Amino acid sequence: MAGPAEESPRRRLRINLGYDGGGFAGWARQPGLRTVEGMLSDALDTLTREDATPLVVAGRTDAGVHARRQVCHVDVPVTVVDQLNERRLNGLLPPDVRVHGVGPAAPGFDARFSATHRSYCYRLADEPAAVDPLRRDVLRWPRRLDVAAMAAACPALLGLHDFAAFCRARTGATTIRTLLALDVERSSTGVVEVGVRADAFCHSMVRGLVGALVGVGEGRHGPDWPAQVLARALRDPAVRVLPPGGLTLEQVAYPVESELAARAERARAMRAPPETAPAAPSDGGRS
Amino acid sequence: MAGPAEESPRRRLRINLGYDGGGFAGWARQPGLRTVEGMLSDALDTLTREDATPLVVAGRTDAGVHARRQVCHVDVPVTVVDQLNERRLNGLLPPDVRVHGVGPAAPGFDARFSATHRSYCYRLADEPAAVDPLRRDVLRWPRRLDVAAMAAACPALLGLHDFAAFCRARTGATTIRTLLALDVERSSTGVVEVGVRADAFCHSMVRGLVGALVGVGEGRHGPDWPAQVLARALRDPAVRVLPPGGLTLEQVAYPVESELAARAERARAMRAPPETAPAAPSDGGRS
Repeated sequence: MAGPAEESPRRRLRINLGYDGGGFAGWARQPGLRTVEGMLSDALDTLTREDATPLVVAGRTDAGVHARRQVCHVDVPVTVVDQLNERRLNGLLPPDVRVHGVGPAAPGFDARFSATHRSYCYRLADEPAAVDPLRRDVLRWPRRLDVAAMAAACPALLGLHDFAAFCRARTGATTIRTLLALDVERSSTGVVEVGVRADAFCHSMVRGLVGALVGVGEGRHGPDWPAQVLARALRDPAVRVLPPGGLTLEQVAYPVESELAARAERARAMRAPPETAPAAPSDGGRS
Repeated sequence: MAGPAEESPRRRLRINLGYDGGGFAGWARQPGLRTVEGMLSDALDTLTREDATPLVVAGRTDAGVHARRQVCHVDVPVTVVDQLNERRLNGLLPPDVRVHGVGPAAPGFDARFSATHRSYCYRLADEPAAVDPLRRDVLRWPRRLDVAAMAAACPALLGLHDFAAFCRARTGATTIRTLLALDVERSSTGVVEVGVRADAFCHSMVRGLVGALVGVGEGRHGPDWPAQVLARALRDPAVRVLPPGGLTLEQVAYPVESELAARAERARAMRAPPETAPAAPSDGGRS
């Protein structure tokens, strides 16, 4: 590696990317495992001549979870900014992760803390005709789902709640979140699509929520059941956490440029107490 | 294999299926190669206890070409009809080919000759942000395409023509076809989609047509050029046949049940002279 790059002034870059999570042990770098952060950080190291370039991501997806519009940021020496573009990064990355855009971040931008909300979609193919071998983001489901019953269960879950019933516990991580949208519909190709939007997610929250909705869709529970589970605010063993292969991070939303810094400050105060490092498991984007 | 199954009465089944063509040497069975027909025929053999069950397909896709809604038929002993369903077939097939439906064919149905038209879509991602690692049916294109110029070239190609300029020559195979639709548009995700519909296609015709349109989209030729090439009715070396990975058979259309047999008779007379076996390269669905 070249000399002490940390001495030169640095510039924050925003990187938009997508990946097929099937071949990755999640976003976060882990020794000896194939991770998205590991791949992207290695590619950046090659271009910046640094060692283990630290990345900050909007949604720390779990092993097997996909992303269509993921966002991260990285601070690089100003001297190498011109070396970094989509073509060069994609040339160093495997085909299952693709950079969509790289460029200077707006002032105050933080990929994690400036985000106002994250949108995920969970997709299930509950009939043979809906299974498309050309798509990598749909889970095959062996039983028919009643989409109307699932949709009826959604409104009672919206708003500010303690989602502990649907999350895997993490020490020091809050499970209080604002669920902004939860919709279930059958697409034109017959796929059951559960769209979820929240300010942030605790660990396995989307897959737990969809697991509860699937319990309704299969007729094992009535449409009131997920709200009853939510109200108990305790991890419920009857809620199945669905496999990661049907889950995709679809979008991360940010405020207008003038509010990026203020938003980041508020989110940092709410979600990561001062003693917690930004990369700790309490971050806001867990799927 | 069990006894002489050809002695028992047979029933025609229609099979709808889709596949990711990337791992196949095309539809047609070839010794020692991984083909869709080979896989499906082997699965049918297992369930029917026959040997090399013959299949008739609507679109004989080339190596690497995908299918989202392919159709084929097979004549099986009536005694095994109840053994054949999507679940059993899919259990014997690899994940890159999926059966969407199996059932008795309507009277007079022929997957190849009853078809009134085939629809293909060729997809190109001509900017980094349009590349989605979760999709297997889009070709990465390194240069920006002018979609309006490509669309302007389309109307002059419609109708009954000799498409020899865009096809790979095959002895005894006609290159006269009726092009029913040809549209170019940019999808909401930024992908350039070329939709093509015809009564049938000669070999490499879609990939040749799209190759000519891409020549217009890149500004190497004006929108009048593809029609000039067509009018010469001779294979033109300036027409690039595009790679198979961007091409997908999207739909096969059939007439109402009462017209299935008559349609098959007409198509057989037009496209396959009596001395030509149905599986010969002169068939109607080549891509």
